[in-house]
Amino acid sequence: MAKHDSHRYSRFHVPGHAGKVPSQEDERRYFESIRRLDFTELEGLDDLHAPSGVIDEAQRLAAIAFGAEESFFLLNGSTVGNHAMILGTSSPGDLLLVQRNCHKSVLNGLMLSGVRAVFLMPRIDQQTGLMTGLDPTLVQQALQQYPEAKGLLLTNPNYYGMGTDLAAISQMVHAHNIPLLVDEAHGAHYGFHPDYPPSALSALADVVVQSTHKMLTAMTMGAMLHLQGPRVDRTRIKRILSMLQSSSPSYPIMASLDLARRNIAIEGHRLLDNTLQHVYRLRKWIDETTPFRYIKPGMDFETLDPLKISLWDSTGTLSGFELMTKLRHYGCFAEMADTRHVLLHFGLHTNEEDLIRLMEALTAISLDAFSEKKENSKASENIYAIQPHPAISIPVSFGLPVERVASPTQLRIPLTKAVGKQSAEMVIPYPPGIPVLYPGETISEWAAIYLQELAECGATFQGLKHVTEFGIPIITPDVENK
Amino acid sequence: MAKHDSHRYSRFHVPGHAGKVPSQEDERRYFESIRRLDFTELEGLDDLHAPSGVIDEAQRLAAIAFGAEESFFLLNGSTVGNHAMILGTSSPGDLLLVQRNCHKSVLNGLMLSGVRAVFLMPRIDQQTGLMTGLDPTLVQQALQQYPEAKGLLLTNPNYYGMGTDLAAISQMVHAHNIPLLVDEAHGAHYGFHPDYPPSALSALADVVVQSTHKMLTAMTMGAMLHLQGPRVDRTRIKRILSMLQSSSPSYPIMASLDLARRNIAIEGHRLLDNTLQHVYRLRKWIDETTPFRYIKPGMDFETLDPLKISLWDSTGTLSGFELMTKLRHYGCFAEMADTRHVLLHFGLHTNEEDLIRLMEALTAISLDAFSEKKENSKASENIYAIQPHPAISIPVSFGLPVERVASPTQLRIPLTKAVGKQSAEMVIPYPPGIPVLYPGETISEWAAIYLQELAECGATFQGLKHVTEFGIPIITPDVENK
Repeated sequence: MAKHDSHRYSRFHVPGHAGKVPSQEDERRYFESIRRLDFTELEGLDDLHAPSGVIDEAQRLAAIAFGAEESFFLLNGSTVGNHAMILGTSSPGDLLLVQRNCHKSVLNGLMLSGVRAVFLMPRIDQQTGLMTGLDPTLVQQALQQYPEAKGLLLTNPNYYGMGTDLAAISQMVHAHNIPLLVDEAHGAHYGFHPDYPPSALSALADVVVQSTHKMLTAMTMGAMLHLQGPRVDRTRIKRILSMLQSSSPSYPIMASLDLARRNIAIEGHRLLDNTLQHVYRLRKWIDETTPFRYIKPGMDFETLDPLKISLWDSTGTLSGFELMTKLRHYGCFAEMADTRHVLLHFGLHTNEEDLIRLMEALTAISLDAFSEKKENSKASENIYAIQPHPAISIPVSFGLPVERVASPTQLRIPLTKAVGKQSAEMVIPYPPGIPVLYPGETISEWAAIYLQELAECGATFQGLKHVTEFGIPIITPDVENK
Repeated sequence: MAKHDSHRYSRFHVPGHAGKVPSQEDERRYFESIRRLDFTELEGLDDLHAPSGVIDEAQRLAAIAFGAEESFFLLNGSTVGNHAMILGTSSPGDLLLVQRNCHKSVLNGLMLSGVRAVFLMPRIDQQTGLMTGLDPTLVQQALQQYPEAKGLLLTNPNYYGMGTDLAAISQMVHAHNIPLLVDEAHGAHYGFHPDYPPSALSALADVVVQSTHKMLTAMTMGAMLHLQGPRVDRTRIKRILSMLQSSSPSYPIMASLDLARRNIAIEGHRLLDNTLQHVYRLRKWIDETTPFRYIKPGMDFETLDPLKISLWDSTGTLSGFELMTKLRHYGCFAEMADTRHVLLHFGLHTNEEDLIRLMEALTAISLDAFSEKKENSKASENIYAIQPHPAISIPVSFGLPVERVASPTQLRIPLTKAVGKQSAEMVIPYPPGIPVLYPGETISEWAAIYLQELAECGATFQGLKHVTEFGIPIITPDVENK
């Protein structure tokens, strides 16, 4: 592409900006150079939907780098990869085993496909109250209980970097001769350095989706889907990807995927090592000189991504949301917060300057904050002690939203009165985008309390801005029978 | 966003490149400035999936500029807009009236949704043999024949800029109290200048999808979906969009949509006027001094986009594909070619330099090419004289690819023997990405000859590279019954 850019020529084709220099200063500053790469499918530039040239070559190099047999560039994030993973392996009415704390794109994929899901509850980490990964014993049990399952779809690592023993699960799933489908959105950097957890591909997962933009250096929406082994129909997955992805895929994002691959393949070990030294230093400093703690390897998960530091205030003064706000005042933008933790994401390019700014911020916050000790702090409560969802759910089938919620004037009732009723919508705190309630799911006491907590701490919800103010939409018998 | 960029701060969040300057020179040249806009949903940067801040404001400004009641940014091209238009207005088993020469994304939307389609044949332009727009009389007939239809989905203008009388069709469709859904991918610039055709929104279409990157200046994959009127369930369309689009939408593409809106809203009239002068001058020059001609307003379409010039060689020496190749040698890259035409796309920023290069190229080509007069030229034949598909098809229901093609070792037979058999796949020359055959469709003599012509002229096919060499995949009774 850079080669194509260096040619002097006139563009009588899309995109309409024609690679020309924008006239407005603000547009020029950001878009001038990238516009020169913003092409369409010209001679020599290949075609993502029928690759045989440079895109084919870039995808082959990606397969080699990540250890897959075939790799595909995704231009609509891991979202489209998760959709393709479901639509490409199961037909309407088929049954998939699905880890419950999956990303909303997995649930949307189930809705789009008409595939039935049996949800498997992950383990709950006793130390933090967070949902981690699947227990291999539970997987074994589910495989025996549902021998008709077409595959197991799990998320590894979770948003906090916690992971499970993939190799053990992979072996079990393969013993039933069905594929293991892994949403590895947060683990594209795995497998390139011995001090990081192993990759899903190295655990022989059959389909793996990675957000190359999250932990590696691609542009946002750049992701990959990797395939190996004989258990999935590759032609079908390719066709589904071609159906779902734009017929005008972004060349800048494709180029950034290729560059991110080159970056991790060639410089990965050195960069990962470098960041690890920063992380080790930071951890030591936090332990020795601050009241903050961070999630450490625990009993209820097997692997932990060293590049995710989930900070919490051991004095119980600051909630996760409060700590995140304070960090922002000192110029440190975190990935997300929950009621207790602030999640800090370290990348391949985290440097000394970032580290010092963070240390200074934490020092200042601990001096400031703990002088104003609060009375009714919620930060130290563990709301997860309540009984969660069943370990293995009964098969659930989702329709598209409209089939579930027949009327736009659906009933909303206060959260406190919603226990025992069926939720009409997905309720998704974002980030991390993991639904707490599914459409049609009976609202448990646990879920109601958890949502109340999140709302009080200032969490935002997608599609449902004011859970506490306007209540929660539920399915009433009337609406259901329409 | 630019405001956020100007802050000095440390990023402990995705994307992984953290906005830092790339270390490699080639990456730096193109990505350094755009990376600084490549954000995630931070405080102040809003959330596409629950907009209430800057994204909401940008979408409102877009609605005002384009004349909609509500507008939505699309990050996966018009593809996702067409999918949402179908999934958002019809349920599985419902029936839609669909213009036959639709983009493949419309057909994929029908497959994803399980919606049945009744295809309406567009008029065939006698002058060029091209499929243009729908005849209002046919629309009226189809509306009476299929009163259960949930809407009419049409494409306007077509790839060559030819369009139909949308206002008349709109009135008929609304008289049946169903929505008019318009794929206006190639018409985002309509409605901003009196010498251009009117926009679909001004014809009161209910849902309109526009590729803002095609005729306006957004980055590739940047598109919009516009809504107006009471005939569609907006909540449902919003939810479908939220299901299909990446949970990490690209901020650079969103910013480019906002800038493209600003550009057309503020400078649109002047820029459109300017390009028009170039186009008028070029047309006059072509008519007076070259053996080339271009598509002019005709009998079988009502509107023609002045920014699309479809050149053809009136001496019959050069096919469209050959002319495109020759233009490329002289530094002029065209949008696409068919057996007869080369489609040149003029943009808001086409300038004097482009025009001169094109004139010089055409002069040189006419001197060169016509000395080597060929014997068996196909360029002047009109292959469209053969009877095409029926004007109104019977309802067709598509499944996902796997349900249609049960076996990966499907049967392929030579094109010449395929007439009367059912195609197992979509057969799509690209560009323009308009399927000539649908899965399950009986292969007509017309289609077989047309595909043969295209292949001989060097057209490329998505998913089916070598139609003539390997034959065409068909459904055999065996495969069908599986």
